[in-house]
Amino acid sequence: MKFCTRCGNAVSLKIPAGDDRERFVCDSCELIHYSNPRVIVGCVPVYQGRVLLCLRAIEPRKNYWTLPAGFMENGETTVQGAARETWEEARARVSNLDLYRVFDVPHISQVYMFYRCDIDDGEFGVGPESLESELYTEAEIPWERIAFPVVTETLKAYFADAPRGEFPVDVSAIDLGSLRR
Amino acid sequence: MKFCTRCGNAVSLKIPAGDDRERFVCDSCELIHYSNPRVIVGCVPVYQGRVLLCLRAIEPRKNYWTLPAGFMENGETTVQGAARETWEEARARVSNLDLYRVFDVPHISQVYMFYRCDIDDGEFGVGPESLESELYTEAEIPWERIAFPVVTETLKAYFADAPRGEFPVDVSAIDLGSLRR
Repeated sequence: MKFCTRCGNAVSLKIPAGDDRERFVCDSCELIHYSNPRVIVGCVPVYQGRVLLCLRAIEPRKNYWTLPAGFMENGETTVQGAARETWEEARARVSNLDLYRVFDVPHISQVYMFYRCDIDDGEFGVGPESLESELYTEAEIPWERIAFPVVTETLKAYFADAPRGEFPVDVSAIDLGSLRR
Repeated sequence: MKFCTRCGNAVSLKIPAGDDRERFVCDSCELIHYSNPRVIVGCVPVYQGRVLLCLRAIEPRKNYWTLPAGFMENGETTVQGAARETWEEARARVSNLDLYRVFDVPHISQVYMFYRCDIDDGEFGVGPESLESELYTEAEIPWERIAFPVVTETLKAYFADAPRGEFPVDVSAIDLGSLRR
């Protein structure tokens, strides 16, 4: 960030009065520009015990499988965002969204929130950011071709919890090491 | 937003190619500026069955009681942010943070995440954004002087769940109507 969003003059990194960390502050109008973590909302869409995955059509991780997920938008709830992403990427309408997994990814300032949900009528398709969509049993999951560690973790947890039918919410952090594995 | 953060030229609201909603796009260098919801992280700090509240020293809702909470910062986890805010506002060190309540507040593009936790050694104080801090039983809570609906909801839920010792996670949305009540 180099220029002020309000007046177009240069900004500098400074610790504002009463604050304890550096922000981009306008040299001219003194507007403080805050930057905060972003939320990625997604679903674990289930139909008859199988989970819906999408084959990514875009980078990063093109040609790897993922749960439908994306950046939460202004003006929506986390539940609405998760359902929207599932429609956009997998053309599935979903119901009964229950929070299941939260992942903090602090080195990239992201928070993932995955909701378990049902796929209405078991119908799905392929959105513009996907090459394919498919329902998978645990045995069928292409574990070596999963796009992101948070997806692998969520799928493992889901299939571990499913036999009991109890899905306790869990919060965990993903560090740089685990992202590289 | 009027000017590009990268080149300082004017921005306009446009729907970028491949997108489906308006973003501020630079008329000159074409940088797309995304704006996304912010996360507020906070705690329900408990000691011997009583909950720690802070009397706000700053607007909004100065002189009203709140749970310690504030904007999540880049580079931290939700758990770290909730603990940091509790130190900053109530000078309490906390442990055993468990996610308890998530509130979507879509009309202001915020997501609240409250963690139940223990106050180490029962010690607390008063940070610069607070006038007082105090531990309250359910009967002692100043219900008419609570700063925000999400705090009232979280406190009610906590004292309802406490007798059973089970604290299921819940996600709900706060609309403009409930914020005004």
